[in-house]
Amino acid sequence: MTDLKNRLSNYQEEINTAIDQYLPKQNSMPPIIHEAMRYSALSKGKRIRPILALETVNMFSNEYKKAMPAAVAIELAHCFTLVHDDLPSIDDDDLRRGVLTNHKVYGDGMALLAGDALLIDAFRVISDFQKPLEVVPTVISLLSNALSSNGVIGGQVVDILAEKNSLKHDYENLKYLHLNKTAKLIQASVLIGAEISQVERSKINILKDASEKIGIAFQIKDDLLDVLGDVNKIGKNIGRDEELGKLTYPKVFGITQAKKMSDNLKFESIDLLKQIDNSDKLIEIFEFLVDRNF
Amino acid sequence: MTDLKNRLSNYQEEINTAIDQYLPKQNSMPPIIHEAMRYSALSKGKRIRPILALETVNMFSNEYKKAMPAAVAIELAHCFTLVHDDLPSIDDDDLRRGVLTNHKVYGDGMALLAGDALLIDAFRVISDFQKPLEVVPTVISLLSNALSSNGVIGGQVVDILAEKNSLKHDYENLKYLHLNKTAKLIQASVLIGAEISQVERSKINILKDASEKIGIAFQIKDDLLDVLGDVNKIGKNIGRDEELGKLTYPKVFGITQAKKMSDNLKFESIDLLKQIDNSDKLIEIFEFLVDRNF
Repeated sequence: MTDLKNRLSNYQEEINTAIDQYLPKQNSMPPIIHEAMRYSALSKGKRIRPILALETVNMFSNEYKKAMPAAVAIELAHCFTLVHDDLPSIDDDDLRRGVLTNHKVYGDGMALLAGDALLIDAFRVISDFQKPLEVVPTVISLLSNALSSNGVIGGQVVDILAEKNSLKHDYENLKYLHLNKTAKLIQASVLIGAEISQVERSKINILKDASEKIGIAFQIKDDLLDVLGDVNKIGKNIGRDEELGKLTYPKVFGITQAKKMSDNLKFESIDLLKQIDNSDKLIEIFEFLVDRNF
Repeated sequence: MTDLKNRLSNYQEEINTAIDQYLPKQNSMPPIIHEAMRYSALSKGKRIRPILALETVNMFSNEYKKAMPAAVAIELAHCFTLVHDDLPSIDDDDLRRGVLTNHKVYGDGMALLAGDALLIDAFRVISDFQKPLEVVPTVISLLSNALSSNGVIGGQVVDILAEKNSLKHDYENLKYLHLNKTAKLIQASVLIGAEISQVERSKINILKDASEKIGIAFQIKDDLLDVLGDVNKIGKNIGRDEELGKLTYPKVFGITQAKKMSDNLKFESIDLLKQIDNSDKLIEIFEFLVDRNF
């Protein structure tokens, strides 16, 4: 576990340095937007998605640095979703990653624009820095499809509709929600790593299934932590899902069953990964996604 | 003028058909977000930016259809900026393109997400449909840089700061505002057309200067129409700039001088375009951008 901790911590440090490098400088005109962008993009995140991309590349070649622009882009896009989700017109959250949410510091209008700019910069960073150039269209296709109204945004919409009881709190909607809101970007992170490594189709298909399963398991764990977690460890308020009337696994299946479902998805996912040589480090990270307590 | 009118109208029709084709179907899950996206993307816009891209391609090859995915992407990105600008936390506008703004119909949260999804789809459409593949990184770089915090978003930030009197209402800030908020996306539209046509650097440099000038002139005209225009023709409320205390050319220079500055930029821009063979049709459109009364 200490090895994994160090490994994650090294990745986090390199990713943070790269985010700092690829974002516009804090004092570039107009400074306030760059301050707001950096406030959220450089806050203390786990960097799970970019780490998944880098670790996937490492599984095939040890040349993970070549995927750094795409990894940064994935994290910027993820930060965009957080900044917008926290806005008053969506979840109206005050706390994120242990600090005040973006709009609580910079105001609603500036937070909206900072979120927009982070999303735009995700695509700017890939198109300006990702090499080799021939993988750029695929990387952008994977990222944009995962984020789209048939992905993260679609999941967010169902999340809101479920809160308002405009959608049934049933398993079908729950599956849609977790697949789209969370699993698709987790999956895209792994697949972007695989595409940058230019590996064969059969391996990509295995990674596709494995990463979808772990992505859903990861969101179930997030639901569980919202009930059982410690605010000081997870850096956001606890019990918000219940408060907002959200559609979650613990709500539909109860805590014990939700935990079992999450573990089962983890085991299935890892069984798939075992079919690929040299996958032990990626497996450790997959395990961490579900076994973590923050 | 009738020829130009027909020409614009033909382009508009083809662009609308393509937007309809590339956006997710109205009934795809979850339908409400796709309805909201289509409401704004298929509203009665002039389609100036995608037309500039297509007309630039036509100047070099008559094969404008090859640029259609990029043209659609440019318009989707432009629609994203409008939907977010109209939100209560920014300009709080009720009327756009002659109909209620997105949030007035779908609510603030859904409009926020619809704007996000339109922006994401801009990049999705280019990466999934634009050919040849080798121009995709350049097209995405041009679009994302133009939209970024050093482009449209940066301009939008200065717009808000000027409204709040947090920035001087002087010529320097005014130039920054019009260059970034408006000219850069106009310029990117022309340059995307040129890059898809794979023309030589010297011509791209001319187009770069010409399109920046016409982009600024276009925004000065927009400022003038907000004072002098007819709400039934321009489809948004008149006098809003004054009401919101916006930084505009008429405000800093007066109406007569602003008109002169806009015309001068137009003439300089057209003089540049005349250096390129077969540019007469693009020149007509440049003239229209400043001579229009809607």
